[in-house]
Amino acid sequence: MPEDREVHVYLLPELVPSGRLVNGLAVVIDVLRAATTIVHALAAGCCAVRPCAEVTEAQELANQMRAGRVLLGGERGGKPLPGFDLGNSPAEYTPKLCKGTTLVLTTSNGTRALLRAAEAERVLVAGFVNYSAVCEQLRHDARPIHIICSGTEGEVSLEDTLLAGALIDYLCETMEVKLDDSARLAWDCFENHGRVLDGALEISKGGAKLRSLGYDDDIRLAAQVDQFALVPELRRDPLRVEVGAVGIVKSHWPK
Amino acid sequence: MPEDREVHVYLLPELVPSGRLVNGLAVVIDVLRAATTIVHALAAGCCAVRPCAEVTEAQELANQMRAGRVLLGGERGGKPLPGFDLGNSPAEYTPKLCKGTTLVLTTSNGTRALLRAAEAERVLVAGFVNYSAVCEQLRHDARPIHIICSGTEGEVSLEDTLLAGALIDYLCETMEVKLDDSARLAWDCFENHGRVLDGALEISKGGAKLRSLGYDDDIRLAAQVDQFALVPELRRDPLRVEVGAVGIVKSHWPK
Repeated sequence: MPEDREVHVYLLPELVPSGRLVNGLAVVIDVLRAATTIVHALAAGCCAVRPCAEVTEAQELANQMRAGRVLLGGERGGKPLPGFDLGNSPAEYTPKLCKGTTLVLTTSNGTRALLRAAEAERVLVAGFVNYSAVCEQLRHDARPIHIICSGTEGEVSLEDTLLAGALIDYLCETMEVKLDDSARLAWDCFENHGRVLDGALEISKGGAKLRSLGYDDDIRLAAQVDQFALVPELRRDPLRVEVGAVGIVKSHWPK
Repeated sequence: MPEDREVHVYLLPELVPSGRLVNGLAVVIDVLRAATTIVHALAAGCCAVRPCAEVTEAQELANQMRAGRVLLGGERGGKPLPGFDLGNSPAEYTPKLCKGTTLVLTTSNGTRALLRAAEAERVLVAGFVNYSAVCEQLRHDARPIHIICSGTEGEVSLEDTLLAGALIDYLCETMEVKLDDSARLAWDCFENHGRVLDGALEISKGGAKLRSLGYDDDIRLAAQVDQFALVPELRRDPLRVEVGAVGIVKSHWPK
C-alpha cells in the first residue's frame, strides 16, 4: 500500500520552516489579489510574470527590458504605484495590453510568498479562478504538497485559508492524505465558508480594505471559481512565472 | 450604542505585532499542556506559578527559593527534565505535593506565550478545564480581547485554535463583537471539532506527540471541560501566575 500523501498548510509565508520545501511541490495562494491577477495576466497573453519583492527592484528590472514589451504592475497598501503601467486589479490586465509582454510585478503579500516558495522543486500559483486546474496538477504529482497562504500584511487571511481548505477538500476526496493541524483548520474554514464565497471574501480583512478603496469588482472577480483552466508555474534563470499547464477534465468545486 | 468589542486571535505568539497588546486583555491558551497544568497546580494548592523561558533560568530561580516551599516543574520535547521535581502532566500536581508551594515552571510553548502576553494590561490563562470561568471574566472586562494560542513547536495547533474558537463562540453569543480573520478561522474550527473534543485533541500534532510518549491520560485530562472554576491571572513584580478569580454562574459550554 502506498504511503499517505503528506500535505502541509502554512497560514503565512513566515511560518514555513527553513528548508522544509526542498523536494516538495509548493502551491502559492494570494486570492486578493496577486494570484488572481497573475492568472488573468497570463490568460490575457502575458508571456511571463517576473515577481519582485521591492518597488525599486521592479522599476530597475522593467527599465532594463525593451520598452513596449514590458508592463510594470503592482501595488502598496492596495493602491497603484506612481509611474507604474498598471495596479493589481485583475480586470486591468486586458489582452490588448498584455499580449506578448512580460509583466514585472511587485505586491505587498503575494510576491513575497512566491519568492519564499522558490525553495520547492516545483511551484504553482493558485486562485479560486483556476481552482480545478490546480487540483489536477496536485493529483498528478507525487511530491509532498506544501500550500502557502500569503496572508494580509503579516496577518492570517480568511480568503487564502479558505482556498487552501478547498484544495484540502479535493485532496481528501481523491487520495489518502496525512494532514497537519493547519490543513485541518483550513478544511474547517472551507466547510463553513465555501458555499458563501463572495460573502467570505467581503468580510475578510483584505476584502474590507479593498472595498474601502473602491475595488469591489476585484473581490467579485477573485471569487469566479474556474474562470480559467491554466496553472501558473515558477521557472528559473531568471525566476519567472509562466503558464505551466492548461486544461481541466472537469470542475472539482463541490456542488 | 456602544461600539462592538474588538476580539483578536493570534494562532501563535510570534504573530502578535509588537505593542498590540498594550491596554488590552490577553488570554493565553496552551491546552497541551501548560495552561491545563497551571490550572491543576493552582487548584491543588500552589500559591503561585513562576513562568521561566529557559531551563537554567528555572533552575536558578528555584535554587534561590526556600527548599520545601518550591516545586521545579516543566518539560522539553514533552519529557520531564533531569533534576526537576515534576514534569508537565496535570495529574502529577496533587494537593499533597502542591499545598503552600510556589511552582517554577518552564515548558516548550506555553511559558513563552505567557511571557509574550505580559505586555497586556491584564493576562488570563485558559484551558478547556476552566473554560466557563474564563468566559465570565471576559464578559465583565471592557478591554479589547487578545486570545493568544501557544501552538506546538512554532506550528499552529488544532487544540489551541479549538479553545480560541470556543471562546469566540461564547463572545458572539453574549455581545456584539468585531472579529479578525484568525478569530473567524478559530470559530470555524470550533464549529467542526467542538463536539468531538477528545478526538480532536488526539489527532492534533501535539496530541499525537503525547500519545507517542505514553501521555494519553494528559489528553483526557485536558479535555475535561469546566473541571475547575478558577482563572489563573498574571501578577507583576515578580512576574507570576496566581488565582485571579474563582467561581462560575453556570456552564457556558454549548450543549
